[in-house]
Amino acid sequence: MSDELKKGRVTIPTDVGIVPETLEILKRWGADAIRDCDGTDFPKELAEADAKIYSTYYTTRKDNAWAKANPDEVQQMYIMTPFCSTDKGPLEIKLMKGLYPDMLKVNPKDRERWWEVIDRTTGEVVPVSDWSYSEDTGLVTIQEARPFHEYTVSFLAFIIWDPVHMYNAVTNGWKDFEKQCTFDVRQPKTHRYSMERLRKFCAEHPYVNVIRYTTFFHQFTLVFDELAREKYVDWYGYSASVSPYILDQFEKEVGYRFRPEFIIDQGYHNNQYRIPTKEYRDFQAFQRREVAKLAKEMVDITHECGKEAMMFLGDHWIGTEPFMPEFKTIGLDAVVGSVGNGMTLRLISDIEGVKYTEGRFLPYFFPDTFHEGGDPVKEAKVNWVTARRAILRKPIDRIGYGGYLKLALKFPEFIDYVESVCNEFRELYRNIKGTTPYCFKRVAVLNCWGKMRSWGCHMVHHALYQKQNYSYAGVIEALSGAPFDVSFISFDDIRKDPKMLENIDVIINVGGADTAHTGGENWRDPVIVEAVRKFIFEGGGFIGVGEPTAHQAQGHFFQLAGVMGVEKETGFTFNYDKYNWDEHEHFITADSEGDIDFGESVHGIYALPGATVIRQKDKEVQLAANDYGNGRSVYISGLPYSFENNRLLYRAILWASSSEDLLHTWFSTNYNVEVHAFVKNGKYCVVNNTYEPQKTTVFRGDGSSFDLDLDSNEIRWYNI
Amino acid sequence: MSDELKKGRVTIPTDVGIVPETLEILKRWGADAIRDCDGTDFPKELAEADAKIYSTYYTTRKDNAWAKANPDEVQQMYIMTPFCSTDKGPLEIKLMKGLYPDMLKVNPKDRERWWEVIDRTTGEVVPVSDWSYSEDTGLVTIQEARPFHEYTVSFLAFIIWDPVHMYNAVTNGWKDFEKQCTFDVRQPKTHRYSMERLRKFCAEHPYVNVIRYTTFFHQFTLVFDELAREKYVDWYGYSASVSPYILDQFEKEVGYRFRPEFIIDQGYHNNQYRIPTKEYRDFQAFQRREVAKLAKEMVDITHECGKEAMMFLGDHWIGTEPFMPEFKTIGLDAVVGSVGNGMTLRLISDIEGVKYTEGRFLPYFFPDTFHEGGDPVKEAKVNWVTARRAILRKPIDRIGYGGYLKLALKFPEFIDYVESVCNEFRELYRNIKGTTPYCFKRVAVLNCWGKMRSWGCHMVHHALYQKQNYSYAGVIEALSGAPFDVSFISFDDIRKDPKMLENIDVIINVGGADTAHTGGENWRDPVIVEAVRKFIFEGGGFIGVGEPTAHQAQGHFFQLAGVMGVEKETGFTFNYDKYNWDEHEHFITADSEGDIDFGESVHGIYALPGATVIRQKDKEVQLAANDYGNGRSVYISGLPYSFENNRLLYRAILWASSSEDLLHTWFSTNYNVEVHAFVKNGKYCVVNNTYEPQKTTVFRGDGSSFDLDLDSNEIRWYNI
Repeated sequence: MSDELKKGRVTIPTDVGIVPETLEILKRWGADAIRDCDGTDFPKELAEADAKIYSTYYTTRKDNAWAKANPDEVQQMYIMTPFCSTDKGPLEIKLMKGLYPDMLKVNPKDRERWWEVIDRTTGEVVPVSDWSYSEDTGLVTIQEARPFHEYTVSFLAFIIWDPVHMYNAVTNGWKDFEKQCTFDVRQPKTHRYSMERLRKFCAEHPYVNVIRYTTFFHQFTLVFDELAREKYVDWYGYSASVSPYILDQFEKEVGYRFRPEFIIDQGYHNNQYRIPTKEYRDFQAFQRREVAKLAKEMVDITHECGKEAMMFLGDHWIGTEPFMPEFKTIGLDAVVGSVGNGMTLRLISDIEGVKYTEGRFLPYFFPDTFHEGGDPVKEAKVNWVTARRAILRKPIDRIGYGGYLKLALKFPEFIDYVESVCNEFRELYRNIKGTTPYCFKRVAVLNCWGKMRSWGCHMVHHALYQKQNYSYAGVIEALSGAPFDVSFISFDDIRKDPKMLENIDVIINVGGADTAHTGGENWRDPVIVEAVRKFIFEGGGFIGVGEPTAHQAQGHFFQLAGVMGVEKETGFTFNYDKYNWDEHEHFITADSEGDIDFGESVHGIYALPGATVIRQKDKEVQLAANDYGNGRSVYISGLPYSFENNRLLYRAILWASSSEDLLHTWFSTNYNVEVHAFVKNGKYCVVNNTYEPQKTTVFRGDGSSFDLDLDSNEIRWYNI
Repeated sequence: MSDELKKGRVTIPTDVGIVPETLEILKRWGADAIRDCDGTDFPKELAEADAKIYSTYYTTRKDNAWAKANPDEVQQMYIMTPFCSTDKGPLEIKLMKGLYPDMLKVNPKDRERWWEVIDRTTGEVVPVSDWSYSEDTGLVTIQEARPFHEYTVSFLAFIIWDPVHMYNAVTNGWKDFEKQCTFDVRQPKTHRYSMERLRKFCAEHPYVNVIRYTTFFHQFTLVFDELAREKYVDWYGYSASVSPYILDQFEKEVGYRFRPEFIIDQGYHNNQYRIPTKEYRDFQAFQRREVAKLAKEMVDITHECGKEAMMFLGDHWIGTEPFMPEFKTIGLDAVVGSVGNGMTLRLISDIEGVKYTEGRFLPYFFPDTFHEGGDPVKEAKVNWVTARRAILRKPIDRIGYGGYLKLALKFPEFIDYVESVCNEFRELYRNIKGTTPYCFKRVAVLNCWGKMRSWGCHMVHHALYQKQNYSYAGVIEALSGAPFDVSFISFDDIRKDPKMLENIDVIINVGGADTAHTGGENWRDPVIVEAVRKFIFEGGGFIGVGEPTAHQAQGHFFQLAGVMGVEKETGFTFNYDKYNWDEHEHFITADSEGDIDFGESVHGIYALPGATVIRQKDKEVQLAANDYGNGRSVYISGLPYSFENNRLLYRAILWASSSEDLLHTWFSTNYNVEVHAFVKNGKYCVVNNTYEPQKTTVFRGDGSSFDLDLDSNEIRWYNI
């Protein structure tokens, strides 16, 4: 094995008290970087090890002295109370109801300006003169509340315990520690102080090579309830990035009056299912600009001090949005993020404008996995094989692990397995780096968010499974490792320039009705409908999954019903008889065996006359194909991620783009095995995605083929 | 057996050529009325039989001479073409595409006024100057159609073959007959002619005692496609009740300009799932008044001629709406209708303002059931036992059968079974007539239609099963035979007088989101929400089934989420953690065994904190209970009709009205058996609804009880 394959591209965690063990692991895994973590300390003895030293750096916490001395610059967030009503008399609303008292503290200052009491039954704002707040009782009182109307209060609260610190403390059962209070680097005093604090840190840690920012200034939305259980989490949420100082600036910049409702959003907090309002997008853009400016200051200082600046894509990452143009201006050297699956891998590896990217693999060395009876090898295998598909399309530059190394050391099989992963990663990195793998088609996922939510468009809390969205997220996961040039586009992109669709072969619209994922009322914009219909009519492909293009209006629930050849019964078309139910064999399902897993059922889908029903169950269409002009459309009710479904989507994309003839190039007949070609590097690989041996026939780029047996998980490399 | 029990209250069909057989059946079944049917003729020899003679009378067909001589007064209907678009150049739309050419004929007259071409992509009406129609080609041409916009044409067509006549002809494979053309009694010439025709008919049929109108003037909406298959059917639809003559009158009366879209309704034709528009309700009211006026003329003539006037509730019944106030003014003697189940029984028996009601039981003596290998006894049993529950709550006055008696005669077991049904009916009629059976609670089904759609509020085509609505219709079916005082109320009723709710114990809101059944945007009217919340808060009960009160606005999908303690996840609240999943034993499910059949799944229902989850499956709540002030609410995801579910609903109603203490009165511990009390008559009965013997314990009104064994289907009568 060459040196290049034995060493490098791997980061390991450490802690005080395990110096020899760290050095041993460093050697076995071929690691070239060592890091500390939240809850661990870096042992000075390792400063001289043959490895880069990363140091986590918390810009907004771990300095309670400052936080407590400057309570006015503690971070804040917008909270909405539950819906409250009264049958008669005044209505009292307890602001902190359902919130963890050690985490949040009401900010009563200038409440007339920054709070909003709303009659949700009418949607009207209650005049400030009609309500009052008592700091003693913590109650808002609406003296003349209308009986049986529901009211909410939107208010600002200080984040007096950093939510991630709290999460780590609760999850690991920490005892005897100080709760880390937040401070807001955006505000003048803390801004100045923070830059000095950073310089000081750099000076005091000469052995540190990489400042691993965890992260910059604003935590994604994360709130805990009275019982310290997670109450609300949005990995993409901006609700904890506010303060009167920031909002004043925002108001000046956009030139219209700020309303708390811009952030509160009926209590939905602009989560990514919501079709974003103009005001929210304005706010996000403002935050991106301001965060980039300030982050750049820190990065510049880091560089001045001779260190690299690495950003953790998580925790306080709000405002950095790596796929948006402001990101590059920060000047970071690297981004590191947690890898839960293929989507989250691409979330990191697709980032442009940094020197390198690093994926932190699972499992994290925490007691929830590394306990007696735990099976960390299994988790590691699933994680690695799942991510590998995506790495083969767009590699990260490094891999790494986090948590308490001490815990991992108790599992020698795990140590062995990770060693093999590190070697395999280095080999594939060498083989593919610098090339674009062969892409059959240009596929665009169309939703309200576009580029900003690339790969993460169905994520609620990072890679967590959700019963309600795995049938949709499966499509994105399949794409993360598929041989397509995948982009994420928004309705605004099309409005700006309908011709942009000329660079796309297949549009995918996936999600539930009237969500940002499918677009809702955007499908009532003639510009959108004209452009998309024209695109398909002239030969483009369209794949709709779930309730695509759904918005009830003018005789359709699916606005592209006529294109897709399917419609959803909501009761309004019961009176029409439906005769198109016969299933047909089809190119798309040629590799599917028996029942296809379409995930959660979507009720009431029926085919219009002329459409080809491929699968229906109890008179609910699950898969259908349709011609529209020179183009083609495929409807799928849902597509959970599996190797079999991955193949189905692959075929659907080829069929939708009228390219069935491309099937037998860089192809494995067995859908558990995939072929990736790196033509420029003269390499291709065949990879077994399963934990069992597989047989297959492999087709090369010229259509020639050979049979192959692969071991479980095996990846085999060939020269072209 | 007394005479009263041996004879009367039964109508049988007849035909020429089976006179002795008719007389035999008349005797065996104790029938006292004989009728003809569509496709049969009355044998003159029976004129002297000891029975009333009914004669079907078709006001709008069976007189092709008149119809053909007056083509301008043939009936008309509004039709919408499919959605059509072009990629470039003019767009041509073929009006008759997808329609049966022998049934409909385009009426091109004054098309500028009565037709509407709509750009469905913008929702705008295309100016008359921008389109043209060629009578030669049958095409509407839009010269400057916007590429990829979808267009529809709403046009008037003459109904040149009566749809029911066509249905009967196609179903029975009739050969060598003349297709009966329609004529419109509302128009002046036909109006005058029809009254003379009626007088003539009466004069020529002196032996006829009852004119059975089939029916009056306007067919419910029924359209057939090119292949003579049913294309569109709405038993409640008004789309075939139009003509320029009528619409001119309507316009004058309401004082605003008529638009075809009032009837076309985006192609949805104001079916009962649609939240009715003001214009459609205006049109219905106008039709009811006009139809009642004209029908009264015919009824008056009937009476003048010494005959009774009976209306068939079906076919051309549009405009008669028996639960609306105009109906009584017609002066009918009787209504007869088809009985498919308990709901359709109540649809007839609840009609007020006539001397008697009659139910036509199934099976109809048609070859679809009465063929070799057919099992008419089974159908008859199901039909009788299903309807009997409802008869025991509110009896019809007569029962009857229709079709070809000749066919039924070939099934002696059927003849025997019907004989027993006739005897049983006469006995129960004697026992319960004139009383109101004991009602435990006043239950109101709340939707947009209210009284007008009593019992029929989930019917698409009479009693037909629909996969998409049996989970909702089951509630209405259960109520049709339940010991409650059931009413159907509308949101308008509440708006008119919120105090009306004081006369109700439990409100039921059942159906899909944003349909007329649940109310959609009505739940954004503060008057409604205040009234209903107040009603519940002060001790009322609320039962929501499916997607009750659903309309996305101001932070809720279910507008009464706070009352019901459940909400539906549409993606907008994914970010909130849900912890309330533990199932609880409950009064409501005390008689339910194992899995409960909730019908079609409703995805994403979760419980709010504090609500009691009774059943959830894979983290989708199916049944939950909640307190609200002094009142209570029950959520059920769906409730197909079954005896077990019937019991569940019964218990839910008692629980919602805080009346668990009433359980052991007039009660059977076995849910397959029901107890009905007729206190005023001093009777109660115990009835086995199943086809197997049953054991049960019966509780009397005073709480005392006794054990009982019942034969299959048995009904046993007791004195109180």
